Amino acid sequence: MTYRHDIAHVGHVELLTPTPEKSLRFFVDVLGLTENGTSGDSVYLRTWDDYEHHTVKLTAHHTSGIRRTALRTISQEALDTLVTEIEKTGRGSGWIDGDAGIGDTYLFTDPDGHEFELYWESEHYRPPEELRPSLKNQAQRYPGRGVCVRRLDHVNFLGADVAANTEFLMDTLGARTTEQIVLDDGTVSGRWLHFANKTYDIVYSGDWTGTTGRLHHIAFATDTREDILRAADIALENDVFIETGPHKHAIQQTFFLYVYEPGGNRIELCNPGARLILAPDWEPITWTEAERAKGQAWGLKTIESFHTHGTPPVDEPAAR
Amino acid sequence: MTYRHDIAHVGHVELLTPTPEKSLRFFVDVLGLTENGTSGDSVYLRTWDDYEHHTVKLTAHHTSGIRRTALRTISQEALDTLVTEIEKTGRGSGWIDGDAGIGDTYLFTDPDGHEFELYWESEHYRPPEELRPSLKNQAQRYPGRGVCVRRLDHVNFLGADVAANTEFLMDTLGARTTEQIVLDDGTVSGRWLHFANKTYDIVYSGDWTGTTGRLHHIAFATDTREDILRAADIALENDVFIETGPHKHAIQQTFFLYVYEPGGNRIELCNPGARLILAPDWEPITWTEAERAKGQAWGLKTIESFHTHGTPPVDEPAAR
Amino acid sequence: MTYRHDIAHVGHVELLTPTPEKSLRFFVDVLGLTENGTSGDSVYLRTWDDYEHHTVKLTAHHTSGIRRTALRTISQEALDTLVTEIEKTGRGSGWIDGDAGIGDTYLFTDPDGHEFELYWESEHYRPPEELRPSLKNQAQRYPGRGVCVRRLDHVNFLGADVAANTEFLMDTLGARTTEQIVLDDGTVSGRWLHFANKTYDIVYSGDWTGTTGRLHHIAFATDTREDILRAADIALENDVFIETGPHKHAIQQTFFLYVYEPGGNRIELCNPGARLILAPDWEPITWTEAERAKGQAWGLKTIESFHTHGTPPVDEPAAR
Amino acid sequence: MTYRHDIAHVGHVELLTPTPEKSLRFFVDVLGLTENGTSGDSVYLRTWDDYEHHTVKLTAHHTSGIRRTALRTISQEALDTLVTEIEKTGRGSGWIDGDAGIGDTYLFTDPDGHEFELYWESEHYRPPEELRPSLKNQAQRYPGRGVCVRRLDHVNFLGADVAANTEFLMDTLGARTTEQIVLDDGTVSGRWLHFANKTYDIVYSGDWTGTTGRLHHIAFATDTREDILRAADIALENDVFIETGPHKHAIQQTFFLYVYEPGGNRIELCNPGARLILAPDWEPITWTEAERAKGQAWGLKTIESFHTHGTPPVDEPAAR
Repeated sequence: MTYRHDIAHVGHVELLTPTPEKSLRFFVDVLGLTENGTSGDSVYLRTWDDYEHHTVKLTAHHTSGIRRTALRTISQEALDTLVTEIEKTGRGSGWIDGDAGIGDTYLFTDPDGHEFELYWESEHYRPPEELRPSLKNQAQRYPGRGVCVRRLDHVNFLGADVAANTEFLMDTLGARTTEQIVLDDGTVSGRWLHFANKTYDIVYSGDWTGTTGRLHHIAFATDTREDILRAADIALENDVFIETGPHKHAIQQTFFLYVYEPGGNRIELCNPGARLILAPDWEPITWTEAERAKGQAWGLKTIESFHTHGTPPVDEPAAR
Repeated sequence: MTYRHDIAHVGHVELLTPTPEKSLRFFVDVLGLTENGTSGDSVYLRTWDDYEHHTVKLTAHHTSGIRRTALRTISQEALDTLVTEIEKTGRGSGWIDGDAGIGDTYLFTDPDGHEFELYWESEHYRPPEELRPSLKNQAQRYPGRGVCVRRLDHVNFLGADVAANTEFLMDTLGARTTEQIVLDDGTVSGRWLHFANKTYDIVYSGDWTGTTGRLHHIAFATDTREDILRAADIALENDVFIETGPHKHAIQQTFFLYVYEPGGNRIELCNPGARLILAPDWEPITWTEAERAKGQAWGLKTIESFHTHGTPPVDEPAAR
Repeated sequence: MTYRHDIAHVGHVELLTPTPEKSLRFFVDVLGLTENGTSGDSVYLRTWDDYEHHTVKLTAHHTSGIRRTALRTISQEALDTLVTEIEKTGRGSGWIDGDAGIGDTYLFTDPDGHEFELYWESEHYRPPEELRPSLKNQAQRYPGRGVCVRRLDHVNFLGADVAANTEFLMDTLGARTTEQIVLDDGTVSGRWLHFANKTYDIVYSGDWTGTTGRLHHIAFATDTREDILRAADIALENDVFIETGPHKHAIQQTFFLYVYEPGGNRIELCNPGARLILAPDWEPITWTEAERAKGQAWGLKTIESFHTHGTPPVDEPAAR
Repeated sequence: MTYRHDIAHVGHVELLTPTPEKSLRFFVDVLGLTENGTSGDSVYLRTWDDYEHHTVKLTAHHTSGIRRTALRTISQEALDTLVTEIEKTGRGSGWIDGDAGIGDTYLFTDPDGHEFELYWESEHYRPPEELRPSLKNQAQRYPGRGVCVRRLDHVNFLGADVAANTEFLMDTLGARTTEQIVLDDGTVSGRWLHFANKTYDIVYSGDWTGTTGRLHHIAFATDTREDILRAADIALENDVFIETGPHKHAIQQTFFLYVYEPGGNRIELCNPGARLILAPDWEPITWTEAERAKGQAWGLKTIESFHTHGTPPVDEPAAR
């Protein structure tokens, strides 16, 4: 398969919350993000290492979930090429004006109905005086407040059909699989996709309810594993629900902590460490049911709620 | 400028040492690399996270320095394209059989005379039973011996003309500048080049002696900053010369420790942390003489020997 | 209650193993202890920061468990005073010659039958040339091998009657309680005792089988929490059984990892961090059943085997 | 020498600042201390792990320096005994009412004129609702703000005659020497004293100006070495002057960072790690001039201002 590199990285996400004020306080005070303007019912938030206008668009809504995931292309030419590819699939929704700091934006949906946007033009962030960093090669001053997450790391979607969703992104966008879970009956129940050197950028996990368009979690990266341990202490002191961790994933070997933000969305705080995928011909790692039954890297059993909690919540989770 | 991605990563280096047995012990016992065969006067050594045959080819020689730096392309097609580009410059040396585990290899030199190789075919490493990792998404068992460096991170060359050397790699290979030092007289005295998401892969520093083809250092990445602190303790206990650090570079913000291996080559142990260059339109950061005079990130003065020690050694370093 | 300080610290333990060669390899290769002589069926082992002759006396035996726990007094006078106190209780067994490096030794047992020794005279360790540290304020060279545990931290006994055992040590030796678990029926099911600034040195946990004289675990301290995470990786790669962790205890807030050494004894690797008990009038913290049901600090449930695994093993664990 | 344990620990210090508002912001926002009331021109400040009323009494003054260092005894009886000892020396100043949260307090001075207080009665801190920790074995909620120092670690005085000052504390209070620097002419130029398991609590360094009663620095302990690295980043971002570090001291092996608070007082942020002095018969380590000339543990030269900066400042530092 030809090695393509048209998508630069996940840019930002629009996250929905039924408790906007509490969610805002969580992102600002507990995770250490910075507000960067508002738009209607939305607040723009940024991690300190983001070179763009915003990392999260937090939007008040009647329920939780993810509204949209933005992917930046490596050039205008790549954007045009990708739009052409997507339009062939019939899943394109057309062009809109971009959000604050973002140029023309093309919308489309994956087979599951998750909305994505593609864009190229992006204003690089220029911090106001009080947020100016001491080192000029840094986007914004290190906040020293709460967990201080560095950047958005990845988005993990729930999807009714993991294979179909991931194949769509692989075919249209040039995403590549680094790791996956294949059940004994051949069903792909989880697949980790990446675009460049990060080991994963977009993940799909099977939605046991058969519902479409839901979110498993979004993840923010920290600098060190110590930051994750410290995050657990900070979560504990701030009555943030810790679902599981800190521990090390067997898949991708990421050091993790999962919490729920007040609106109900699952948030992963992760440290992928120095792990990069440098091989352009990386062979996808496939994990079997038996291997997954062993739990995480150091033996922690995968928590049951990983298979029952997604956003927005649904009434009747079918048995898995 | 068009965003190109033809080079996947730095693959391996051939390092020369006048004290081969002592250098071998340093790489194996102190840094934690693993031997993977020999060839003539050379020993192949690998870091535990390297997916290829070897990371360092350590070769007995009458003096120190770097003989060759290998760059892997993202495909056979990219390799062919790059060779065509290089041949236009007249700096190509032609094809040779590759080293162990490596396919057809094309040699060329930069304007300074440093030898490079380009290759695409590469056997993925299959560990013997005793080196098999517990997690199947890992190349080799974590050795738990010495510093346990994860991978080769970058190569920093000394060059008589930094601008000319880096422009050559930018033009022919599609390298991009992330940061650079420009002196008051306009001379580029240091430039950091990268190929994908790592913030740098190849660096050129001005050689004050006017000599060509020398090495400033090669660098190995660890998982955490704590590993660097631990490395300093391990160096101390093993009579390894610590030149400077641990500290944090202002440029690139890398957490570093510099030591000399017994053959005299400078080795950096570094933790680039979670820092990645995701922006496809990253604007190079330029540091002035005045800014560099402030020293490293937390105030440590740049050590004088950074401007006087390179390998192989030369007789008469001119005043800088 | 009068503040007493007669016991300086836990000195060493004699640990029994039915698999002496495998246990030895575990302590030397995985934990990073150093051999320091033998005696009959025993091998003396030391952690690198131990100022005395040995930290563990590892003895081949038909089963596992702890044979003896040694406590060093702060002076000869304190030793004599304590022996007088113990003899009043009828639990003294008399004087014996000490083990290698240890002077006259007085033996006694707690009500549960665990054997203790008291001693004052102790030869300070003088390392051979190859183990001499670079810094003269350190007992032995940092090994850079495996987990590199720093020192023996504490001993956790199983006991049929926690209250009786701990009151005995409090009355005779001046141990003080820092934390404890008191069940709803008033039973003390766990109690943490200390002698000076460490938050605990000796712990008793209720033995649900009613058996006496058994061991829950011995613990070794590392320098950092990162060392514990690294220890988990090292355990994983060396097929060492990880029972639970890494995680943070609610009680004492210790960062922990529990593994079984090949002989079956549970070993805790712990990082008590910078936590010290400085208050001479520290009020014991009492945890209720309801509080304990919440699990560890960040929510990990206490593993079931904590209540079913002790050494030596017994045939018929009663329901708890 | 008889092993005595009458002093429990350094309790708190009164620090003087000519820039009270800026100093307050430094302690609260950068170091993460919490205000706990005021008294006249003073603000009481506490670290989150302090079990007493306050850690620092920050007092507005025409210049910088330390006014008083408080030592808590292990009991009322120990307090009475020590007062008797001190009165014999003629250096006692008599009893006063204690500061907030502190009972009857006895004042005295060392030969250099530094004022000390001894006390036994101390109200244990009871946090208000918003500062209540999630774990009941912790004094106060972890603030998650700035460096988050855990506790006051030690005080380092400048003194005209190190030997005389330290012998006074050894004779009267039972302090013991763990390490010291002895110059070639026999002068003790630095001595580290401790009371229990911490490796040092009070340090004296020679004052090259011959002035008396001055401060070299006070030190706060963090949980991990990573906290110190993070502290350096926080200092950098907050325009706090970093004098030297992070690095590891050869003496005591403490991982350190030295900064100046806005009032001019030197503040050390330190991580003593898991290092404890457990030996009741620890033999003091003596460092020679030649050994000190080697610099810190990993080779950093001792910064010149260590010998020229003390508080309050004096006009004419004599050559050292």
